[in-house]
Amino acid sequence: MSDQILLKESVLDSIREYFNNVIPFNTLVGLNVTKMTPEVVEVHTAMRQELIGNTVQNILHGGVVATLLDVAGGLVAMAQSIEKLDDLSKDNVWDRLKHVGTIDLRIDYLLPGRGEEFFAYAYVIRHGKKVAVSRMELENEKGRQLAVGSGTYIVG
Amino acid sequence: MSDQILLKESVLDSIREYFNNVIPFNTLVGLNVTKMTPEVVEVHTAMRQELIGNTVQNILHGGVVATLLDVAGGLVAMAQSIEKLDDLSKDNVWDRLKHVGTIDLRIDYLLPGRGEEFFAYAYVIRHGKKVAVSRMELENEKGRQLAVGSGTYIVG
Amino acid sequence: MSDQILLKESVLDSIREYFNNVIPFNTLVGLNVTKMTPEVVEVHTAMRQELIGNTVQNILHGGVVATLLDVAGGLVAMAQSIEKLDDLSKDNVWDRLKHVGTIDLRIDYLLPGRGEEFFAYAYVIRHGKKVAVSRMELENEKGRQLAVGSGTYIVG
Amino acid sequence: MSDQILLKESVLDSIREYFNNVIPFNTLVGLNVTKMTPEVVEVHTAMRQELIGNTVQNILHGGVVATLLDVAGGLVAMAQSIEKLDDLSKDNVWDRLKHVGTIDLRIDYLLPGRGEEFFAYAYVIRHGKKVAVSRMELENEKGRQLAVGSGTYIVG
Repeated sequence: MSDQILLKESVLDSIREYFNNVIPFNTLVGLNVTKMTPEVVEVHTAMRQELIGNTVQNILHGGVVATLLDVAGGLVAMAQSIEKLDDLSKDNVWDRLKHVGTIDLRIDYLLPGRGEEFFAYAYVIRHGKKVAVSRMELENEKGRQLAVGSGTYIVG
Repeated sequence: MSDQILLKESVLDSIREYFNNVIPFNTLVGLNVTKMTPEVVEVHTAMRQELIGNTVQNILHGGVVATLLDVAGGLVAMAQSIEKLDDLSKDNVWDRLKHVGTIDLRIDYLLPGRGEEFFAYAYVIRHGKKVAVSRMELENEKGRQLAVGSGTYIVG
Repeated sequence: MSDQILLKESVLDSIREYFNNVIPFNTLVGLNVTKMTPEVVEVHTAMRQELIGNTVQNILHGGVVATLLDVAGGLVAMAQSIEKLDDLSKDNVWDRLKHVGTIDLRIDYLLPGRGEEFFAYAYVIRHGKKVAVSRMELENEKGRQLAVGSGTYIVG
Repeated sequence: MSDQILLKESVLDSIREYFNNVIPFNTLVGLNVTKMTPEVVEVHTAMRQELIGNTVQNILHGGVVATLLDVAGGLVAMAQSIEKLDDLSKDNVWDRLKHVGTIDLRIDYLLPGRGEEFFAYAYVIRHGKKVAVSRMELENEKGRQLAVGSGTYIVG
């Protein structure tokens, strides 16, 4: 692999670390960005008592679902944005990150959020220099699709 | 006021208590349902370090915004559903609550989530026996509108 | 095939005919429901001068895209609803149809609507007795995905 | 009024004319942009047989609702974009217009589309150099709100 590719991977790894260990709400929820490439982002969380939104059915809170999908959708848009950068200096990358933000988000809740492990997947469906649109899916450990969504992100 | 009206208010108070003090993710976020009527629901949260989603800008995580709006939107749909009930026995009310759920949610993020206090407001814009649609808004303590959204809820 | 299955197919054919030849706006747009099963609905239209929304780029109007996706999404929800019916008498089917309606619709426009032929596909992603959610996609004759969307429909 | 303001008004009038009389699908639907300022856009259409989507209830097709809301939302985003231009030469304005496009659209259908006249209103709720978000509403001649929506538009 070229130095440039290695550098890009290392940049994505740093972002992943920042999201997993520094962003306070991500650590409160206990989410873990387990994969981050321009093609796909995977975000994992294990079920915990604190994440429950309905104590009768013991299911995940809709806000947790939204959090996982928004993080995954934003990160894959970011990964694509970084893929296109020529200047991978820390300042330039950081400047990009500062300007990434969610414009809007739609979530379709398909099944009650039952499970022990949850995996959000995201990929980019609209590629733009200024705006990207991501498609997201949430599955449990049995592969049941619990929610899908799409998000529009500023990336430029 | 008639007994029936007093009873309805007491039912709404109980639901508010359940949302504020029993639902685990609501207590993790630290949200507080401060008002619940069939006309409007208000949900409050104070800024805390744990709710931050962007440590450069010190702004609220998009997942917190989604959580506040979804809780407010679902509760006002619930309040309308209870308003229409003739039988306010605990079993009947509880049976209703069990079946309320978010079908879909759209959020437009308008401004970075800066502030010390956040207030989500929700009111019903589509009234139905089976499905309700709510409109939601998020403001900070200065009255700046930070996000708006709409949610579709099963209520029947 | 059993009589019941034949009857269901004939009911779906009648609905298709009604959508293609009787609903005025569908004929104005020139759309054609080419397939209708509980698994998938396909709606076709050929490019025509009247459908253009941008005369510089000669692309499909966003309102045409919305029309194709909404029709496809509603029909597949309807097909699933009929699949579950025991009583396929004309009165009962017609009564069902009258109550099917779009609650909300989200469309992501991915590429400019260029092409000579357009195909909308829809399938159900949330199955319910009262509410269904459909997923829709729009492609041109080269298989380029131009738009995706999801719609929530009253079916009960 | 200054020349610059007069010029801006004249630019908006030209765009209005283009939308009303040149864009083929707009004339097919029979819509009329009756007001276009950076604050609000109003789009009108009269009920006609061709716009019906449900012959039992004689109501407006959901695709017509989407068309009216998308046109209104896009035009108000465009009006704001032009408001911010310093160079109002025809080439520059036209260049702007070419790049305005709908990224995504959400519509909440609140009541069946009954009426003799329909008015769509749109205003901008997120102001950006690259992306604008508009809020839209559809009313009939009696002032009943039939649908609301929001759209995200590329403007830069």
